Amino acid sequence: MDILSVLENKKRGKALSAEEIGFFVRGAADHSLPDYQLAALLMAIRLNGMDARETADLTMAMAYSGDMLIPDVGGVPVDKHSTGGVGDTTTLVLAPLVAACGGKVLKMSGRGLGHTGGTLDKLESIPGMRIALSEKEFQDIVRTVGCAVVSQSAQLAPADKTLYSLRDVTATVDSIPLIVSSILSKKFAAGAKAIVLDVKTGSGALMPTLEASIELAQAMVAIGDHAGRRIVAVVSGMEEPLGSHVGNALEVKEAIDILAGRAQGPLKKVSLFLGAQMLLASGVADTEEEALDRLNRALDSGAGLQKLKEMIAAQGGDSRVCDDVNLLPKAPVLYPVRAREGGFLAHVNGTALGLAAQRMGAGRVRKEDAIDPAVGFVMEKRIGDEVKPGDVLCTLHAASAESAKETEERVLGALAFTKEPAPKARLLYALITPQGVRNLHE
Amino acid sequence: MDILSVLENKKRGKALSAEEIGFFVRGAADHSLPDYQLAALLMAIRLNGMDARETADLTMAMAYSGDMLIPDVGGVPVDKHSTGGVGDTTTLVLAPLVAACGGKVLKMSGRGLGHTGGTLDKLESIPGMRIALSEKEFQDIVRTVGCAVVSQSAQLAPADKTLYSLRDVTATVDSIPLIVSSILSKKFAAGAKAIVLDVKTGSGALMPTLEASIELAQAMVAIGDHAGRRIVAVVSGMEEPLGSHVGNALEVKEAIDILAGRAQGPLKKVSLFLGAQMLLASGVADTEEEALDRLNRALDSGAGLQKLKEMIAAQGGDSRVCDDVNLLPKAPVLYPVRAREGGFLAHVNGTALGLAAQRMGAGRVRKEDAIDPAVGFVMEKRIGDEVKPGDVLCTLHAASAESAKETEERVLGALAFTKEPAPKARLLYALITPQGVRNLHE
Repeated sequence: MDILSVLENKKRGKALSAEEIGFFVRGAADHSLPDYQLAALLMAIRLNGMDARETADLTMAMAYSGDMLIPDVGGVPVDKHSTGGVGDTTTLVLAPLVAACGGKVLKMSGRGLGHTGGTLDKLESIPGMRIALSEKEFQDIVRTVGCAVVSQSAQLAPADKTLYSLRDVTATVDSIPLIVSSILSKKFAAGAKAIVLDVKTGSGALMPTLEASIELAQAMVAIGDHAGRRIVAVVSGMEEPLGSHVGNALEVKEAIDILAGRAQGPLKKVSLFLGAQMLLASGVADTEEEALDRLNRALDSGAGLQKLKEMIAAQGGDSRVCDDVNLLPKAPVLYPVRAREGGFLAHVNGTALGLAAQRMGAGRVRKEDAIDPAVGFVMEKRIGDEVKPGDVLCTLHAASAESAKETEERVLGALAFTKEPAPKARLLYALITPQGVRNLHE
Repeated sequence: MDILSVLENKKRGKALSAEEIGFFVRGAADHSLPDYQLAALLMAIRLNGMDARETADLTMAMAYSGDMLIPDVGGVPVDKHSTGGVGDTTTLVLAPLVAACGGKVLKMSGRGLGHTGGTLDKLESIPGMRIALSEKEFQDIVRTVGCAVVSQSAQLAPADKTLYSLRDVTATVDSIPLIVSSILSKKFAAGAKAIVLDVKTGSGALMPTLEASIELAQAMVAIGDHAGRRIVAVVSGMEEPLGSHVGNALEVKEAIDILAGRAQGPLKKVSLFLGAQMLLASGVADTEEEALDRLNRALDSGAGLQKLKEMIAAQGGDSRVCDDVNLLPKAPVLYPVRAREGGFLAHVNGTALGLAAQRMGAGRVRKEDAIDPAVGFVMEKRIGDEVKPGDVLCTLHAASAESAKETEERVLGALAFTKEPAPKARLLYALITPQGVRNLHE
């Protein structure tokens, strides 16, 4: 076996054998293959594709390129992954609720880079919170509390680390087999037996069209069969931030507000739907109706908020934030962004809003950048809302008046109004299971 | 300008602008771009192609990536390039003949790597021969003698050096825009104003089909317009070694034998045809008939052999080899490979023969390998010849009896016989000029 024949075959559009895939994945994991050969192969895969069998082989080879955890958590380990969005805090809402219903949520997460926030960064805005836990600590918490959210170990799927960093700098991110294998290999290595995927669609998403998003979702669901895991995928919209809060501590606050019954809206709705899929996928509930019913009861009874408290405490954080969100970091400057004209909010550039939050200090431009947990903003209007001149569109939580003024222009530039009434943005598009695609009517 | 947007555009199948091409070529020349990004771009170019305008821009950007020579040789500098073949010694036959007719042959050549020999390695089998000459020495020889064959300066087309070495290890050699720009950028930088290309077709050639070979030839001829150079291309067959001699000193001997009037055959025929195109392209002759006539007279009169002597002497070599080929290095073991069965020689695996010669020591596996100038073999049969059991197919010139035995099996394995008469291999297929394609009947 040599890498040139693998390159030659993929260049000619042939399907690679499991042996060929195993060969280059090992070479990526142990750095025995030079980056330039991997880079050329990634471009050949991006342009000539991989079929379902190749994608499954690639995913499994990457999963087995490092440690494989076999978690002992007293139930079916379930995980959830989102392909990314601004103001998307579903993990912090659904993990405690699913745990309150008896699920075992084993969630390894990443840091934010670019315009979307990372769950770990959000959690670290809670004083004392530790996210780098040993495998034993992590499993103990999932077993006793029912959920834990920690940073991914470097020993899991090391081939992905090599390939992911190369994809970023070779314009090969937008490849379904490469996306699928990157996401799922880490989940498999971390021991998840049931996985719920939230595939975003729309401008700024990995996959720009609904068709491409469904195709990506189907490719991931299909891998479940090969891997002996239950995978379902939800295709959801990202026409605007899912929650109204954007920023690390602000998003924790919104999650707490939802769990405390003080907040409603799209973030709650999508979190409950994803949570129901997690209960179903891990066999804790039998029907979607039953799952949603149990989640709603966990929410109404306060059992979900109680689980979040337990998880925060178990991870060393100050769980009193669940009772008093004022204990979370707060920005010194509150500044209302007001509408300069009237109309209907018709379009929100989510990427631009994410970048505005990043510039405020909520996100990183480079991996080594520090972030400010307190800054961000709260959207007061959603797509479809009518707006009068002077109405508050958004409240900024800024580090300085200067930052607020700068952000005001960025936020206004990200919003577009029409004179005609505009429809609300669609939240849920489709549910993809091994049985097929279900159109989600709202 | 950044390399990611260039990668993105070529990945999406867009034509790159001259600025984008200039950007990545400069990055290749000065190593400011990492190999992995160039490797991904080469694969994207291989798979999504480049149009004629892009190919011309790439060629010119690579030509201008280093020194540009403006040779002062008292005439139109003419060069010839072959895309490679086993036993292909046309340069040593045609350069002296063209010079004898008044042409100014300015030939920068490479070393052999893989299964085909390099002209420089062949020349170095002549005792004392120097191939690393200064630009001034080189031009002086072309001006006074009419031809010189030297090694390429590292200051010419440095971008090609980077890209060529990456193509070799990323399976991106077989790309028309990349082949065209690699070959022609060096010729342009070396100052050739007229260029005759010998594009090989058939198994083992860069381009496997006749159509693809003609396409490559057309792409190169088309660049001439953009570059203000006269380019013509000949598509020729490589079903078997062109000359009967394979090996460095042996190929020099065959060239001398042809120039001395002692040998005939396909190598002579193709050399004369290519030489005639060189006289036409550089304006030394007006019609093909006149050009062939003058070349034949230079051959018959011994003027061609005299020019080879002068060139060898000017480059420090022992020109007495032209009068006594026994002064060339000789292998200790002569060994006849005999036919084990009768029939007609129907197929010759030229690549396998080239590799057999390489293993004998005539070629390099790695760049740093030393070569043995004396070893190789002389084919006694050509495709279409009838063979009886016990006939000598080939005479090996080996370093040892062991090497001879080993090579015997390799040579026999490279030949296939049929019971039915087999047709001779076609030598010349087409002539491509700016005016169009001319089918070459034999």
